[in-house]
Amino acid sequence: MSDRPRYRLFVDAPLQAGAPVALDEGQVHYLGHVLRLGDGDQVCVFNGRDGEWRAAFGRIGKKGGALTPLDLLAPQPAEAETILVFAPIRGAKVEFVAEKATELGATRLVPAITRRTVIDRANSLRMRANAIEAAEQCGRLAFPDIAEIRKLDQVLGDWDPAIPLFFCDEGGDVPPLLDAARGIGESPAGVLIGPEGGFDPVERVLLRRLAFVRPVGLGRRILRAETAAIAALTLIEAARQA
Amino acid sequence: MSDRPRYRLFVDAPLQAGAPVALDEGQVHYLGHVLRLGDGDQVCVFNGRDGEWRAAFGRIGKKGGALTPLDLLAPQPAEAETILVFAPIRGAKVEFVAEKATELGATRLVPAITRRTVIDRANSLRMRANAIEAAEQCGRLAFPDIAEIRKLDQVLGDWDPAIPLFFCDEGGDVPPLLDAARGIGESPAGVLIGPEGGFDPVERVLLRRLAFVRPVGLGRRILRAETAAIAALTLIEAARQA
Repeated sequence: MSDRPRYRLFVDAPLQAGAPVALDEGQVHYLGHVLRLGDGDQVCVFNGRDGEWRAAFGRIGKKGGALTPLDLLAPQPAEAETILVFAPIRGAKVEFVAEKATELGATRLVPAITRRTVIDRANSLRMRANAIEAAEQCGRLAFPDIAEIRKLDQVLGDWDPAIPLFFCDEGGDVPPLLDAARGIGESPAGVLIGPEGGFDPVERVLLRRLAFVRPVGLGRRILRAETAAIAALTLIEAARQA
Repeated sequence: MSDRPRYRLFVDAPLQAGAPVALDEGQVHYLGHVLRLGDGDQVCVFNGRDGEWRAAFGRIGKKGGALTPLDLLAPQPAEAETILVFAPIRGAKVEFVAEKATELGATRLVPAITRRTVIDRANSLRMRANAIEAAEQCGRLAFPDIAEIRKLDQVLGDWDPAIPLFFCDEGGDVPPLLDAARGIGESPAGVLIGPEGGFDPVERVLLRRLAFVRPVGLGRRILRAETAAIAALTLIEAARQA
């Protein structure tokens, strides 16, 4: 058996040995023209469920192509559930959050409209594309689900009260996230990041009244929203390992 | 006394009450045309040394302008020395590192050429501009020095051996950064982040032979270089607070 193929590709279809998976036009273009692969050349393939496979590329007609899984390189690992709830942010920054959250192990991204949220849309499809690209590049075999954007009230109303939601609160006397999350191990956890202007005072009071909400701090400086998201996910992962 | 002014500006000159500071053309344009400030309107100003001042804007002639510091809003805080040594990365990502490192409290950025470094230049001026902009926006009263790019050997040769350098090593049996950095408090510390392809095996051996180098891990996933830099700085700050 040869070395692990250098390139990795996500596909949506089930993966099993010998069962070819049809590729879309963009994927065929990428493999055939960008990477210049020919019939029989190998890549790694994953779908977020069936582990990582070595697969052989083959063209079908002029524009089509397929990957045929050959052997399982790595089984799908269990991942601790880590949910990032965040107020939507502008353009490139939201793509950046999707990318970094994928690298840092988030399993679900939930855009939520807060009282001070300026933007009330989130491009879930683009975030998904960024997450997939990040997973392909960083070696992770899964990427976060992207929830449809909803109001924060609705997100909190539907929240599983057994899962702690670490509310990153800029003001007030709060313990560091790392202390508050100590001992979570592999159990599910969420982090809540506010919009650029911070949470509204009314929102902060309401959040603190919810039994599953744990107000926490991210350090001594004020971080931009996207930096706060990355810092919080880094600290959750560190707490899981502690 | 009125509220704290909304906008913050960095200037290089010394700041003292009543002593006007001449602004460059770009700053005058920003204050006068982008923010539409008129004579006597106030902004916050800092230079990284003399604390934060409330200052009054005034035009000089057609294109000139000055800020006159009125009163000290906050003294210059002492900051723990945190040095980020990193292999230079491409275009927008290096600007991103400069910006996020500023938010996360780095005091010095040191681009270093490793054996597998593809890029052997670093735009120090652009990184400095990104750092200043980040400091202006995140409320920090200082921003990191940007060192000229040098070979990693030279950086290590000149390193103060009293300062631990946490070497973020992708492979091998290493403790988490957070454990290794426990107890550093406010003492100086450095982190070393490798290039996209990782360190060369020879480099890894040499690094481990240096008494001030502490090999550490950043978690269970492989992070891109710029993500690793942010995660490492987040964890250093968390260790300082622990």
